[in-house]
Amino acid sequence: MLTDQYELTMLQAALAGGTAHRRAVFEVFARHLPGGRRYGVVAGTGRFLDALAEFRFGDAELSFLRDRGVVDEPTLDFLAGYRFTGDVHGYAEGECYFPGSPIMVVDGTFAEAVLLETLVLSILNHDSAVAAAASRMTHAAGGRPIIEMGSRRTHEMAAVAAARAAHLAGFATTSNLMAGRAYGVPTAGTSAHAFTLLHDSEHDAFQAQLDSCGPGTTLLVDTYDVAKAVRTAVELAGPELGAVRIDSGDLAVAAHDVRELLDGLGASGTRIVVTGDLDEYSIAALATAPVDGYGVGTSVVTGSGVPTAAMVYKLVAREDAAGELRPVAKKSVGKPSRGGRKVAFRALADGTAVAELVTTATLAATPENARPMLRPLVRAGEIIGREPLAAARERHRAALAELPAAARQLSHGDAVIPTVFS
Amino acid sequence: MLTDQYELTMLQAALAGGTAHRRAVFEVFARHLPGGRRYGVVAGTGRFLDALAEFRFGDAELSFLRDRGVVDEPTLDFLAGYRFTGDVHGYAEGECYFPGSPIMVVDGTFAEAVLLETLVLSILNHDSAVAAAASRMTHAAGGRPIIEMGSRRTHEMAAVAAARAAHLAGFATTSNLMAGRAYGVPTAGTSAHAFTLLHDSEHDAFQAQLDSCGPGTTLLVDTYDVAKAVRTAVELAGPELGAVRIDSGDLAVAAHDVRELLDGLGASGTRIVVTGDLDEYSIAALATAPVDGYGVGTSVVTGSGVPTAAMVYKLVAREDAAGELRPVAKKSVGKPSRGGRKVAFRALADGTAVAELVTTATLAATPENARPMLRPLVRAGEIIGREPLAAARERHRAALAELPAAARQLSHGDAVIPTVFS
Repeated sequence: MLTDQYELTMLQAALAGGTAHRRAVFEVFARHLPGGRRYGVVAGTGRFLDALAEFRFGDAELSFLRDRGVVDEPTLDFLAGYRFTGDVHGYAEGECYFPGSPIMVVDGTFAEAVLLETLVLSILNHDSAVAAAASRMTHAAGGRPIIEMGSRRTHEMAAVAAARAAHLAGFATTSNLMAGRAYGVPTAGTSAHAFTLLHDSEHDAFQAQLDSCGPGTTLLVDTYDVAKAVRTAVELAGPELGAVRIDSGDLAVAAHDVRELLDGLGASGTRIVVTGDLDEYSIAALATAPVDGYGVGTSVVTGSGVPTAAMVYKLVAREDAAGELRPVAKKSVGKPSRGGRKVAFRALADGTAVAELVTTATLAATPENARPMLRPLVRAGEIIGREPLAAARERHRAALAELPAAARQLSHGDAVIPTVFS
Repeated sequence: MLTDQYELTMLQAALAGGTAHRRAVFEVFARHLPGGRRYGVVAGTGRFLDALAEFRFGDAELSFLRDRGVVDEPTLDFLAGYRFTGDVHGYAEGECYFPGSPIMVVDGTFAEAVLLETLVLSILNHDSAVAAAASRMTHAAGGRPIIEMGSRRTHEMAAVAAARAAHLAGFATTSNLMAGRAYGVPTAGTSAHAFTLLHDSEHDAFQAQLDSCGPGTTLLVDTYDVAKAVRTAVELAGPELGAVRIDSGDLAVAAHDVRELLDGLGASGTRIVVTGDLDEYSIAALATAPVDGYGVGTSVVTGSGVPTAAMVYKLVAREDAAGELRPVAKKSVGKPSRGGRKVAFRALADGTAVAELVTTATLAATPENARPMLRPLVRAGEIIGREPLAAARERHRAALAELPAAARQLSHGDAVIPTVFS
């Protein structure tokens, strides 16, 4: 039922008109990279495959559609037996993509494939937007770990997917426990200001946390006075104190002051974690500050200004009355599409990406100095593309390393490599 | 499990330290209205109450927490028996709010209330951001209906909540079928470009849709040539054609051209629906165009530039060692909080709002010319604040009508009424 109504009304009309079972090829692509991004990051593929396996219309859903008069009985019959039996190819999760990259290719009957539009796009648009932001932040952080802590700034289930996408793109950990359980993302978190305020003094609060969590914990030091809190923390925990967290003020200045103070107190091994409305730009600005880790919330779960990835799902080929597969394309002003089923390759020179090659031609072999981008995800309805999240995380690291250095500039600009259509 | 890890580590430390069962009051509020908005819209209250009723830690969750070593056994025991037994008051859903408004007040033990932070904020921040955008768009559209069709641009479950929030704030319908089933939001939708492209001609596609859906349907006319499509549509459907949809090009120019064409063909009753990256500004710009309805996607589900509402959940009072409830507040630079449990009133002059009064005082009665904003939602753990979505929709209409006219300006600015603390 994670479906737009028009998918069902189109299905009804196509069933009645005899065109519903024509073979149809839909492609997912982005016309542009919003927000002046240099590259996109494919994320959500694994979640889509999980959702596809569960994509059914049960009795409760069918009753709703019948009672509301959304579609007629033949359409309800079709939906009751719905299974996707076609093929899906796609860019592997973690790959980078560019304008026009055929990120996913769904090949089935019109009836089977049209119903997947909303599901495919919801998942890929959300997860890829988060991953693109997280990838930039990870690079900005250098080797310093980032914890994702934005659950409270986005829809409660989007938060779980966002934690997954951020980890895929390089974040170390998440605060979201459900993401830990559902996807194995490492989780982290110690305390908030409320914990300090609960106690009759900051001293009591730190003591309670140290008693419970041990000296390796992270103490939050900006509830009242930072310097006083740091002194109390080291007095209670000793030099084994794991870390302190600063959540307000000028973080660069505060980090320098706290580092000096910690070192002076003999706690040179105690780390400094900073949080508080960080994004890729403010992380980059803290590169020379003595910071050991970042916590990022709002900006990563909302895609740092680009909350959705602008991917669309378009019919590019379908069978005609004679049973032949024909390319199709709309001609809408400003939003034309390119007809024909596509394949894609990343052209490389000395191991560095130089172009995205997208072609409707049937090639006998992979072009020289290029690697194929599409891999099978679903074959005749059977899901064959599942993989551990760690594989996607490692793939993203490699895919990003393969791009020209300009990809890692944070300023707005064009895609870092051109897409060449043929 | 829609919880941040630090809520559980704080719980563990407080249980061990003997402070977990102190009475604690947390408040949800927004320090500012992001994006230069003149007012905020409370949305998600009903979803929060539903989620609260289901907020439990089951065996699978407890096993995960145990296996990962997130918390100790006494904490797991507490979680196994977790029920919220406190009180919640809040602004009713659909109300407008302002910086510092105590949108929700959660009164329980620290242990019971701290666990709700992520859940409360995820729901209210997401839904209120969407509702604020939808409210502005609804006003910009005048009396013309708007269909929400952004499901594909946001997380698949966020889409359902977004459709609910948009309807609450004035949208007529949604494309999202799950929102129809779960919340009774009216659903709508007819066809996409893919349906036209599926057929051997636009003529065949329109005929199939008309055969299946009747002449009252909406035909999409911009797949190839708009004027040709409109002629074909009226030729096939006659003047009873319900509507045509234009999804590309200069929508104002196209609407004028299509209106003239329809009228010339005798289809003066056929409506014109426009879609395609609309937001409140482009809707306002179409006010004088002959448009009968709008479809809005990306911009409403992403809060039109403000994807999250910046609400926070802060401890404002808690019992001390002597059992007395004391106000507490952090002093973090730039993010101080105001201690003490608050009540709020909307001050009115001749029926128009003039100020938001927020006080920590215990008042004997509602101040003159003011209405109380907090109402009971949960009493001793029992959920008593549920209401039909239609009630929240009607309340928002009334709450917005009560604000000064400047509230309806689309330009960036300050909150339309001041918040007066005492």
